[in-house]
Amino acid sequence: MSHQPVKVLVDTVVKLERRGAQKSLRKILNGTRPADLARLIRFLPEPHRAKILRQIEDIASRAEVLTEIEHDVLPSILEQLSDDELARLLEEMVSDDAVDVLALLDDERKERLLGLMRREDMHEAELLLRFDPESAGGIMSPDFFSLGESVTVAEAIEFLQTQGSDLEMAFYLYVTNDHDHLVGVVSLRQLVISPPDRPLAEIMEPDVVRVKTSDDREAVSWLVARYNLLALPVVDDSNRLVGIGTVDDVIDVIREEATEDMFRMAGAGDAPIALDASGVLQSIRSRLPWLFASWIGGIGASFIIHGFEEQLAKVALMAAFIPVIIGMGGNIGTQSLTIVTRGLALGQLQADQLLRVVSRELLVGLACGAFYGILLGGVGALVAHLDAENLRFGDPLSFGLTITVSLCAAMVIAAVVGSSVPMLFQRLSIDPAVATGPFVTTAVDVLGVLVYFASASVLLGI
Amino acid sequence: MSHQPVKVLVDTVVKLERRGAQKSLRKILNGTRPADLARLIRFLPEPHRAKILRQIEDIASRAEVLTEIEHDVLPSILEQLSDDELARLLEEMVSDDAVDVLALLDDERKERLLGLMRREDMHEAELLLRFDPESAGGIMSPDFFSLGESVTVAEAIEFLQTQGSDLEMAFYLYVTNDHDHLVGVVSLRQLVISPPDRPLAEIMEPDVVRVKTSDDREAVSWLVARYNLLALPVVDDSNRLVGIGTVDDVIDVIREEATEDMFRMAGAGDAPIALDASGVLQSIRSRLPWLFASWIGGIGASFIIHGFEEQLAKVALMAAFIPVIIGMGGNIGTQSLTIVTRGLALGQLQADQLLRVVSRELLVGLACGAFYGILLGGVGALVAHLDAENLRFGDPLSFGLTITVSLCAAMVIAAVVGSSVPMLFQRLSIDPAVATGPFVTTAVDVLGVLVYFASASVLLGI
Repeated sequence: MSHQPVKVLVDTVVKLERRGAQKSLRKILNGTRPADLARLIRFLPEPHRAKILRQIEDIASRAEVLTEIEHDVLPSILEQLSDDELARLLEEMVSDDAVDVLALLDDERKERLLGLMRREDMHEAELLLRFDPESAGGIMSPDFFSLGESVTVAEAIEFLQTQGSDLEMAFYLYVTNDHDHLVGVVSLRQLVISPPDRPLAEIMEPDVVRVKTSDDREAVSWLVARYNLLALPVVDDSNRLVGIGTVDDVIDVIREEATEDMFRMAGAGDAPIALDASGVLQSIRSRLPWLFASWIGGIGASFIIHGFEEQLAKVALMAAFIPVIIGMGGNIGTQSLTIVTRGLALGQLQADQLLRVVSRELLVGLACGAFYGILLGGVGALVAHLDAENLRFGDPLSFGLTITVSLCAAMVIAAVVGSSVPMLFQRLSIDPAVATGPFVTTAVDVLGVLVYFASASVLLGI
Repeated sequence: MSHQPVKVLVDTVVKLERRGAQKSLRKILNGTRPADLARLIRFLPEPHRAKILRQIEDIASRAEVLTEIEHDVLPSILEQLSDDELARLLEEMVSDDAVDVLALLDDERKERLLGLMRREDMHEAELLLRFDPESAGGIMSPDFFSLGESVTVAEAIEFLQTQGSDLEMAFYLYVTNDHDHLVGVVSLRQLVISPPDRPLAEIMEPDVVRVKTSDDREAVSWLVARYNLLALPVVDDSNRLVGIGTVDDVIDVIREEATEDMFRMAGAGDAPIALDASGVLQSIRSRLPWLFASWIGGIGASFIIHGFEEQLAKVALMAAFIPVIIGMGGNIGTQSLTIVTRGLALGQLQADQLLRVVSRELLVGLACGAFYGILLGGVGALVAHLDAENLRFGDPLSFGLTITVSLCAAMVIAAVVGSSVPMLFQRLSIDPAVATGPFVTTAVDVLGVLVYFASASVLLGI
């Protein structure tokens, strides 16, 4: 359940650095994988982070570590690196990773760094910087393996052998025609087991799943996941192959999108869990607005209750059951919301299933509402019976019935609201996860209070 | 944002099937990828599902489609297939996929099917069925590519060429010693570019990331994601290579675990969004228990308010602000909970950072609480001023101050509870996502009500 703790490694490294034990320190750093060094640096006290990064001898490893450091702690490290230092590291990176780092910098520094980079690296980076980071173009890597349709299997294998490490993620050989248009794909395994003299056009699979640079990056992750691909070609508007989205990037996208959806549903903004002072400020700024929905809804509920103050004075016991009625409504509403939003995100539900989904949730709400409503009504009737002298209107049984009906109605309403809001959002092509959470709980609060007092008016005659 | 709609395809297929237009139907089915056929079948009306599956001519495609159909709709399809029919399909599947299907059946049918399968397929399936589905052994595939350390590069390539399609996911060649122990790994690309006469021992990477069969399946997904791997070797307790976890399975695990965490945090049980009658029943059964936390907490809040009924009678306006105080508390508590739980799941937080994380959230709670507390206090004072004749105790300003202090305190408490519960759970090695949601909102309801009436007692002198 838990990621391996890094505390021991962190403590050792800090101690060795304080002591100036360079040799032992380097030995540890050289013996640790880049991804683990990135984790180590994350959990180091801030002033040590850039220092330890510099101690990694091999520049390729140093660049890889920088690539693997998460974006919530990266900016403070980048600040401590000189322009020259950073430009050398950016040159070492695959260009899509370099662009991810560059995107964290202000325009001025970005320009300075591009000016310091090798011409070819700069051009690749500038090309990629033009794409929206949330698009397929924004996550693609321009390092792919493509050859013409008339090239033979033997020539292709020879090409692969001479290219060496530049094609780190070459799982597929993409086949293009004379106009650079993508016309087929050959898997590396297919290549190895095919007769050497056959042209690629004869062994390729012509029906290639592809995305456009402007497609959402989520399209890349859906297609890679759905068709169990290792990489997906990205083409421009005229079907020219310009990059590939690889499965390792897709894993990151899937994780980030899941995090984004969770945060949106909780109205938790988009700030990651950075523990430094600027992280706290960022977190406050990003969470404050979402709380507004709840605040406004709360005021709405206040005015409703205030309007029923006369009734409350007659049956003081009513106030006691406000929290449980809106709380249970909020909970079942959150359940419906979560299940439906996730079902939509995973493609298990379609927007045109609105009626079926909502009626399903209505049934669930009715069943759960009836169950807990009857239980709570029993409690209500008992309390009213024990406190009969204060119950100036109605009898304990009617009071219990009011509670049963209100709780059940509030839960049905909540389940319907919680399931229909994301379905409707999907239909309107709005991301269903966009803070539907705070809106739904707020709506449920207001509607729950209304239904409660309305039931009381009818059943208790107040 | 949206998965491609399948409605047109669904309608066409249903129409063709009704008309008995076999030829057109087959043409459509043959021209559609297995993963897309699985999606089509998902969205078909239930009675058509098994029928359309049978119309897929090629048995390998039919088996692949069955593999790709999601588990919420799969059982009803399996019921409609005869034992013989299903056994043939299971034989066509990779054994880890066959086991996933077998796991959905009752023991009796499972035994019958194993008895009908080819001996070798049965043995492989029986071996895999022994592992916990949540473990690395439960998701591993026994089809890997491994050779001894003295085998040469040329021999290895020849072996790969003769094996053909049995090694669908062979990205790495694992190297074993005489005792079948895993001693190294060679990437397929490394193999292709190495001199033909070198033994594998000389070109292999000896430091292999691996998991044990008994490790949690999440360990596979972390390692694959962290080190950007395509496959991860799974070894038994004596380091013998027994299977591999592949990146396509890892993508499914990452998605399922994210869904699981979302559902747990929302107390939404574990039932997927099946739209048939049995799905509704399953959903009710799985969600009902989580609502109990909220129900019990609500009753707790009721008794507290009931205990303060005298005070409520004196300041009737107090009841009106109960929902907003517990609602705002619930919202910020959910924010903290979501951010911290996700940070732990992604390894961005460590259990020993309890104090830093909680104090960070306390600060956020204080800032947001002060902001909305002052706003709400203003509203409270205004309402109290307009309704002065009913305010028998305190003055409008004290009432406003009571609201400010209570809201701020409730939000601070909620942020602290929402962040400390998952941190403590993680420390105790309990999954922090286990329905901390309902518990936290319930605790926040009760504490919010308490703090509200306590503040009123002090500030209004009631």
